[in-house]
This record gives sequence, C-alpha cells and structure tokens, in this order.
Amino acid sequence: MLKYIQLSSYARNELIDITPRVEELVKKSGVSSGVVYLCCLHTTAGITINEGADPDVRRDISRFFEQLVPVDAPFDHSEGNSDAHVKSSLVGVSETVLINGGRLLLGTWQAIYFCEFDGPRTRKVAVKIVADR
Amino acid sequence: MLKYIQLSSYARNELIDITPRVEELVKKSGVSSGVVYLCCLHTTAGITINEGADPDVRRDISRFFEQLVPVDAPFDHSEGNSDAHVKSSLVGVSETVLINGGRLLLGTWQAIYFCEFDGPRTRKVAVKIVADR
Amino acid sequence: MLKYIQLSSYARNELIDITPRVEELVKKSGVSSGVVYLCCLHTTAGITINEGADPDVRRDISRFFEQLVPVDAPFDHSEGNSDAHVKSSLVGVSETVLINGGRLLLGTWQAIYFCEFDGPRTRKVAVKIVADR
Repeated sequence: MLKYIQLSSYARNELIDITPRVEELVKKSGVSSGVVYLCCLHTTAGITINEGADPDVRRDISRFFEQLVPVDAPFDHSEGNSDAHVKSSLVGVSETVLINGGRLLLGTWQAIYFCEFDGPRTRKVAVKIVADR
Repeated sequence: MLKYIQLSSYARNELIDITPRVEELVKKSGVSSGVVYLCCLHTTAGITINEGADPDVRRDISRFFEQLVPVDAPFDHSEGNSDAHVKSSLVGVSETVLINGGRLLLGTWQAIYFCEFDGPRTRKVAVKIVADR
Repeated sequence: MLKYIQLSSYARNELIDITPRVEELVKKSGVSSGVVYLCCLHTTAGITINEGADPDVRRDISRFFEQLVPVDAPFDHSEGNSDAHVKSSLVGVSETVLINGGRLLLGTWQAIYFCEFDGPRTRKVAVKIVADR
C-alpha cells in the first residue's frame, strides 16, 4: 500500500510531528505486523525520529542544525539553500518503522518528525506499508 | 520474527558493538536470504555501521560527536541532554542490513554499533528479521 | 534479487550519482512495485539522496563535510582517515528506495549518491530488490 502525506511548513527551519498521520495510515491498512517505509521526496528536508514529549527538544534540534550548517556558509549553489541540502543529507530523507500489534513500534518517547530546512513550503512524504506474510 | 536486544552502557558517550548479537538472532531464525531491521527505541541513542577492527575508530567517532555537539551548547530542554537528542538525529535510530547465505551481508571491516549518547543506561533495540519469499 | 554496483572514485571527497545504475537494475528485475535496499559495504563512504540537477549542490555538500569534519582533527586511529569514518556515520551507509510503476519513487530533484570520503578507491554497493507480494 502506497500513500502520501501532504503537509505545510510555516518556518524556514521546523520539525513537524507526523506520527499521528502515519499511525492513522497504519490503522486504515489493517496491517497488524509489518514495516512502514517513509520517504521524503524533497532535497531540502528530511525525516527523523526523536523525542515527542517536550517541544523544547524539537526546537533545540532545529536550532542546533541552523548553527551547525549556517545559511551563509561559503556555498556555490546559487539558490541560497545549500545549507538546507546539507542538513537533509545529515538527517536523511527516509525512515523505516516496524509495525507490531497493529501499531507503530516506537519507544515511549519517540515521535516521527518531518524536518523542514527550507520552508515555508508544501511537502509530500511517501508512505509504503508492507505486511508480513 | 521480532526480537529485542537488551544492553547496558557504562559511559555517557560510547559505541557498543552489537554485531555478534544480531548475527546470533539471524542464525537462530534460520533465514538464509532476507532483511534485518534494527530499531533503537530511544531518543538519546542511535545505531550506526562503521569499522569494527581498530577500537580507536569507535572512540574517535564518539569523541568527535562530543566536540561537534557540545553538552553545554545553548539548549532550552531542561534535562541537560539536548546534545544527545541532536546526536541521535545525526546518526539515526535505525539500520537495515541484508541477509545473504544465512549471514549478515556486511563489508570486511563493518560492524554494527549501538551509539550511546546519554549513558550509562539500560537500552533496547528491536530486531525484525524478514525472509525473502 | 541481490546485485552489486562496482564503481571507482577519483577524488578523496566526492559524491557520485548512481541513480542510473540503480534504475537499470530495477528495470532488469522486472519488479513493478517493491523496495530497493542499497548498502555501501565500506566504512569510509556512505549513501545519500540529494539534488541531482545542479552539480554545485553535490560539491557544496562534499566541501561542507570536509570543513565539518577536518582530516587533521585530533584522532587516535593511525590510518589518517578517521574523518572519513565520522562522515560515513553522519551520512549513513544505507538507503531504502521505493519502487512504483516499475521505476524508483524519487522526488523531481532527487538523485542517489555514493559518498566517497577516502578516495580514490574502487567501491561496491549491494543492491537488493524485493517485489511486493
């Protein structure tokens, strides 16, 4: 089953929790045991799994990335978003999450984040759900 | 087949070789061709594949991450482990390894590491083994 | 189906577009819907997905990584390539790409790159193609 999550970002750098939307797709699929593949189809964004409880964590991560890869570092690419491309390769554009008992197998504090590095934009994440035999 | 590897870390930052334990689970599964999904269920740790021969390499990696993301960088999250959350998103919490001929398909020098960034702690890695049809 | 892509790098740090070679293997496999697992079997290289249109982007990424992890940082490992090991863990050694309609499911600007961090060398990427049931 291949589906897409469409979302909008509102800041240049932002982590957006997409866990409920992935969980909803898993529930609708009726798959009780299997794997979910998440693929961000963009080159200035990514996907990561990190703490979902305290919103300070996602802001700390986003802000640290801004410092680690400054937008005004000496880059050749003329669109002014090379920092976003680098951040995308650091975080990665895909994640694989297990399904167990009809639910995402995540740790107590884990949430799935779409990482926006060149917003605000409209974005798309491919979600493929594969059931065990 | 879904199993868990439990492990203990002894330092705040540490790379722990879990290759033998993953190999053992693959052997027990009897799967000769397939895929192993490894998912770290924590938000201040990760999983990486890197050199297993010279222990200096894993110490170099761990120490470089400490310098790259200092524990005392200006973070909002009040638990004092925001650096560990950032490191977790840099390294990633999951890995997919192929199984071929009943063994992990790794390069000559590759080992699978659990990356501790906020130890010492007791940790858990989910291991799902899926056979080809 | 398990295949290998062999390639040669010519610089110490270099991103090499392997998209056409992965696409060719998918085409040959005849799989119309499924998953491709890409595993770099080396510890001083990696795989990333990023922009394929403007060659400045891959050069910006490669050069930024050189600055982020300097070759002459204080490392213990005596082979002088600890920076390459760190870069490998930052970028990651594997990628999972979806197959849809007999083609790689990539965004408009996405390309698959082999990341060389300790070239020039001859390298190998394992490519496993799994069809949906």
